[in-house]
This record gives sequence, structure tokens and C-alpha cells, in this order.
Amino acid sequence: MPHSPEDKKRILTRVRRIRGQTEALERALENGDPCIAILQQIAAVRGAANGLMGEMMEIHLKDELVAGDTSEEQRALRMAEIGHLLRSYLK
Amino acid sequence: MPHSPEDKKRILTRVRRIRGQTEALERALENGDPCIAILQQIAAVRGAANGLMGEMMEIHLKDELVAGDTSEEQRALRMAEIGHLLRSYLK
Amino acid sequence: MPHSPEDKKRILTRVRRIRGQTEALERALENGDPCIAILQQIAAVRGAANGLMGEMMEIHLKDELVAGDTSEEQRALRMAEIGHLLRSYLK
Amino acid sequence: MPHSPEDKKRILTRVRRIRGQTEALERALENGDPCIAILQQIAAVRGAANGLMGEMMEIHLKDELVAGDTSEEQRALRMAEIGHLLRSYLK
Repeated sequence: MPHSPEDKKRILTRVRRIRGQTEALERALENGDPCIAILQQIAAVRGAANGLMGEMMEIHLKDELVAGDTSEEQRALRMAEIGHLLRSYLK
Repeated sequence: MPHSPEDKKRILTRVRRIRGQTEALERALENGDPCIAILQQIAAVRGAANGLMGEMMEIHLKDELVAGDTSEEQRALRMAEIGHLLRSYLK
Repeated sequence: MPHSPEDKKRILTRVRRIRGQTEALERALENGDPCIAILQQIAAVRGAANGLMGEMMEIHLKDELVAGDTSEEQRALRMAEIGHLLRSYLK
Repeated sequence: MPHSPEDKKRILTRVRRIRGQTEALERALENGDPCIAILQQIAAVRGAANGLMGEMMEIHLKDELVAGDTSEEQRALRMAEIGHLLRSYLK
């Protein structure tokens, strides 16, 4: 998880917002709201998931590749794992 | 909302799965799970949001442009609204 | 291809713009331009490809599902093909 | 541009492939090929642009954050620039 408490809090806030959006979406479907409104809410969830992914990726790069006294070898090892994720993510 | 009860059910199932994924993500963050695991869970939420968007868009096209006896004028009017959404979505 | 000559022209213009962007990108790489500049150009190509996809999808829906005197059966058949593409596209 | 000649070559190969795809797309439009075929070619360009972005991003992270003897301060400075790009990219 994110190393700094502030980063962790920001990520949790984003995750909770997405949970709230999905709960509102469930209610909208159960109320029979118009499809266009539902599609707009789904687009908002999708945007929020993208934003969360971007922020978490940035925090991870910061924690793993930037922070602390590290050797090139250590960073290369960590980068291999990140690269794998980045590639699958941008497919 | 989707016109057929089966379509509505499929969409609700997808929305509930995303809610479940965000709840699991909250627990993972609170437990201090490793960042790579958290990033993979976020990528899964993002994939699920994309899948939901695609399915809802398809249902909407079916309900509005395919189903029933409609005139070209009616469909053109509905298409204008859909086009707007599609463009903002694929930006 | 798009049924109306205006639509075809708009799509061709977008495709040529992307070709021009890739040619500029080749030159930038051969000139040894900074990575940040190259990443920004790649992001522009990606945005242009998204815009092209959205516009072509909209034209296709208009040509196949909106235009002309069609029966529900005809539209349902065409929709099946579009749905397949939409799903693979939004994965 | 990418620091290693091999990385530069791989990126150039990807860029040239996208240029080739856009040239084929122009011919397909001029020949009046079916829309579904054109949409599939556009989806391929989009996929190739995503792949190029992912690979270039990975090379950039490797060149800037992994390689060489760098201080935490240097890496933090470089990360700020990358984070900006990552965020705008994942919007």
C-alpha cells in the first residue's frame, strides 16, 4: 500500500467515491432512471477508475523508484515488475 | 433503464460486482496489502467499468435504434443524443 | 465505407492527420528530440486515433441503424455485428 | 529520445508500423471498403498507439528513474514531470 499516510488517505477517498457512485447507480437502475442518465453515471465511474489507476501508479513509482537510497540494480528489479503492469494496462 | 428485465438484471449484476470489487479494495488498503496487488485490483475495477459501459451502450442502441416500428426521423433524433455520448466517451 | 461523401471526406482528413503525426514523430526520433516531447506527440496520436474511432463508429451507426426504411429484423442483424465490435473495442 | 539504440529502434519500428497502417486505411477508404473492415483497421491503429505509448513510457521511466547513479532529489524532480504526463494520459 502507499507508504505515506497522506497518499493512502487520498487513495482510500477515491475508492470510497467509486463505491458511492456504484451504489447510486444501483438505485438509479432500481428506480428505472432513463438510460442516458445511467450511461452518464457509468461514464463517471469509468473516469474515476482511470483517475484512481493514474494516481496509484504515480504513488507506486514515487515509493519504489524515487524514494530513499537505492542502487541502480534495486531500481531495475522493481522496474521489471512495474513495466509488466504498465504494458498490460496500456494494451 | 434497459427495457428488458434480463438486460436490467445483467447490468445490475455488473454494477454489484464493481461495488464488491471496491469494497475488497478498501479492505486491501486498510490491511496494508502490497501496492502491486492493489494496482492489479484497481486495473480489474477499470476493466469492469469498461465492460459495463460497453454492455450498457449496446443495450441502449438495441432499445433505441433497433427495437420496434420507428421512422428514420425518430431514429435520427435518438442518434443525435447517442452520438454526443459516444464522442465524449471516446475522447 | 461511409455512405455520404462528406462523412468519407471527414474520415479521410482524420486519417491523413494521423499519418502526418506519425511522420513528424519519426523525424523527432531521428533528430533525437527529448523523450517528454516524444511522449506528448505519442499521446496526441493516441487521442487522434480515439477521435477517429468515435467518429467512424457514429457514422456507421447512422448509416446502418438510422438511415432509410428498414425493418426491425434488418436492424437487429446489423446490430449483432456492431455489438461484437463495440464489445471488443471497450474491453 | 530513448537513450539506448535498441530502444530507439524498437520505438521507430512501432511508429513506422502505425504509419503503414494509416496508409492502408487511406487506400481502404479510397477503394470503398466495407465500414466494418475500416472500423477494424481503425481499432488496430488505436491498439498500436496504446502499445507505443506504453513502451515509450516504460523506456522513459527506465532512462530517467532507473539508470545511473542518481540522488533521490534528482529522481523526485524527474518524477514530477512524468507524473504530470501520466495523469493527463490516464484521464
